[in-house]
Amino acid sequence: MEFDLATGTAVLERTPRTLSAMLDGLTPAWTDATEGPDTWSPYVILGHLIHGERSDWIPRATIILSRGPDRRFTPYDRFAQFRESEGKSLSDLLGEFAQLRAENVATLASWHLTHTELALTGEHPEFGAVTLSQLLATWVGHDLGHIAQVARVMAKQYRDAIGPWRAYLPIMDR
Amino acid sequence: MEFDLATGTAVLERTPRTLSAMLDGLTPAWTDATEGPDTWSPYVILGHLIHGERSDWIPRATIILSRGPDRRFTPYDRFAQFRESEGKSLSDLLGEFAQLRAENVATLASWHLTHTELALTGEHPEFGAVTLSQLLATWVGHDLGHIAQVARVMAKQYRDAIGPWRAYLPIMDR
Repeated sequence: MEFDLATGTAVLERTPRTLSAMLDGLTPAWTDATEGPDTWSPYVILGHLIHGERSDWIPRATIILSRGPDRRFTPYDRFAQFRESEGKSLSDLLGEFAQLRAENVATLASWHLTHTELALTGEHPEFGAVTLSQLLATWVGHDLGHIAQVARVMAKQYRDAIGPWRAYLPIMDR
Repeated sequence: MEFDLATGTAVLERTPRTLSAMLDGLTPAWTDATEGPDTWSPYVILGHLIHGERSDWIPRATIILSRGPDRRFTPYDRFAQFRESEGKSLSDLLGEFAQLRAENVATLASWHLTHTELALTGEHPEFGAVTLSQLLATWVGHDLGHIAQVARVMAKQYRDAIGPWRAYLPIMDR
């Protein structure tokens, strides 16, 4: 399906509620769980999403819309959350994410983007020219990918507890 | 991690809210989307979860707890939802799932299961002897697997729209 603002925004605005419904009030047995060394817990994933709200999606869209001579994006820091989440509870992070996302969705709506604007390009440090439409669709896909990841990380904590059912639940070995 | 009632139930009781947060109010472009022929949409997945509430988890636990001479489970009907969801809106299904799940979580709590009971076994049509603890852990893992599936099915609708970012979002090709 092609990206369009209404359909894409409908997902973006739901993500904070989805993650709050999944995670708020759970014990660290779930929220600090990982898939093994150097993999991310739901807590770390949430910090990563917050960093994206501050530093990635809207800032990159702004660079594209500036129509300036230099539309190179700042590379994404995939480890910023280990610094930025320090001392914050999971509940703090859920609140922070919800607030930043609401502001960013409001900013996006305030732009009243046209088809012409959605076709404007920026320069990705690795891919080269990318359109605003591709950037915004990726924002949505990135949310959904991390929701799936949170569910998968949690599911794997029961990999042994489910016994022979492991053969029926592909998520346990993904 | 080992299955225990409090930790497992905390996930079970969150699943209806998670799916409502993800799906309620979205257009069919998202909720009827699939990963291709013979794969399930979020709407179909929700019907499947409802069928499980009626016919699988608690009924199988009841068979185990009966301690009867015949503890064979009825095979699971993986296609019941195509019949049972007929004529119902997505919102209907979300409401039905929330109600059934709340009843089932209350039933589970009312049993005050002991370690001895959690170790009782039933007979799975394919696997043979399985414990009540394994059944309940699978209920949790099954929820999380389908939450991840809903997110994945939705994400894939933007597989082309994200352009070169597809290389960074493994969920698009999972």
